[in-house]
Amino acid sequence: MRFISQTSSDGVTEQLFTLPATSGDIPGVLWTPDGATGTRPLILVGHGGGQHKQAPGVVAQAHRLVTECGFAVAAVDAPAHGGRPRSTEHDRLIGEMRGRMQAGGDVAPVLAELHALIAGQSVPEWRAVVTALQELDHVGAGPVGYRGLSLGCALGVPFVAAEPRVRAAVLGLHGAETSAEAAARITVPVEFLVQWDDELVPRATSLALFEALGSTEKTLHANPGRHGAVPEFELDSAVRFFTRHLS
Amino acid sequence: MRFISQTSSDGVTEQLFTLPATSGDIPGVLWTPDGATGTRPLILVGHGGGQHKQAPGVVAQAHRLVTECGFAVAAVDAPAHGGRPRSTEHDRLIGEMRGRMQAGGDVAPVLAELHALIAGQSVPEWRAVVTALQELDHVGAGPVGYRGLSLGCALGVPFVAAEPRVRAAVLGLHGAETSAEAAARITVPVEFLVQWDDELVPRATSLALFEALGSTEKTLHANPGRHGAVPEFELDSAVRFFTRHLS
Repeated sequence: MRFISQTSSDGVTEQLFTLPATSGDIPGVLWTPDGATGTRPLILVGHGGGQHKQAPGVVAQAHRLVTECGFAVAAVDAPAHGGRPRSTEHDRLIGEMRGRMQAGGDVAPVLAELHALIAGQSVPEWRAVVTALQELDHVGAGPVGYRGLSLGCALGVPFVAAEPRVRAAVLGLHGAETSAEAAARITVPVEFLVQWDDELVPRATSLALFEALGSTEKTLHANPGRHGAVPEFELDSAVRFFTRHLS
Repeated sequence: MRFISQTSSDGVTEQLFTLPATSGDIPGVLWTPDGATGTRPLILVGHGGGQHKQAPGVVAQAHRLVTECGFAVAAVDAPAHGGRPRSTEHDRLIGEMRGRMQAGGDVAPVLAELHALIAGQSVPEWRAVVTALQELDHVGAGPVGYRGLSLGCALGVPFVAAEPRVRAAVLGLHGAETSAEAAARITVPVEFLVQWDDELVPRATSLALFEALGSTEKTLHANPGRHGAVPEFELDSAVRFFTRHLS
């Protein structure tokens, strides 16, 4: 793991890093309280489709979790996102998806193929990132949480299912089509977000993914509105959820 | 309004009262912080079927809201519940319902008839209780909240729809069959609870009642488990919800 830069604002230290991987260098960012030393819970934030590790929503979550809870928070660019190269296969699927969206066609099968391609790469990447971050003195081997919606859920479900260091997850804005099988292997507490009028994810497939989760403790939070209109109070809820399960 | 007794425990003053009504005396209870003076938010708690104004779950909610938020909390016995007389019509419908439950028959139409009968009485009663309580110096004319699940939701939906002094409500464990029309007239923020494996309320009718609510801000909270197994953290959530909307 190589650190590239370190800055601080509002009591939050932000460190950009890259971690070498067989799939290419992973660009990431770590947020911790200024002057932090010692072990603390680590929250991983999976960004949405077309976004990146420092999208405004990701940074806002990180600042809340660092300043209110004293946690460490990390995000990485998903494969084919942010500063990362796209393979011809990525390009083909993204082009196909955009074409179908413009033509009003059925995007679901292409999106499923794209998610499967990216997840095959991102799951081992996230696991390597956790290992590397937990070797740092100001992160340490504390409990891990994951929050990811939309693409962050599509990639998060197989990751949380595969990674026993993750003890609690906030997921949602994604359906069961490609994720039900991995969801059934998740056993940690989950808060699962649904937008009741989601124009991208049919309500029935959202509810089916919640249903598929193997967790004994899981709570569905549904709010009116479209895909991008998750109310701000759901971030408050996530902060409390992680505090309850990881502190 | 006539006060019958006053006791105190853990910083919470409990006053039993009766309020005369055309439907007979309404037995109620008011909880406030010890030594409280001045106006504060008032939360009304509607108990479940077969329960009463001082059922353990009602008292536990009251103590949380009084000690953590400084609110006033009140509960009354619903018609045909607690210390209140049953009419021959109540007896007929309750007997019919029990008979169908034992025989494994369709309880829904009888339950709907019973709820309609009780709500016709309880809505004006709750409104009179609010008026009387808000004349007290240690309650005053502050914002009002309502929390009621199961029977407390069946009676709460028409009450919240009819009563503009109610500014926020926590409802749930009840379906759309008899409540959808009144629910559409509710416009205040609602937190709506669903038990995913509810053996008494079909999931689809629960979701339909959430859908029917006219509120712009409404959040569905669904948890696994049967009708009576609402997780304790949903009371935490209700405390925060009322704090957010009424403080």
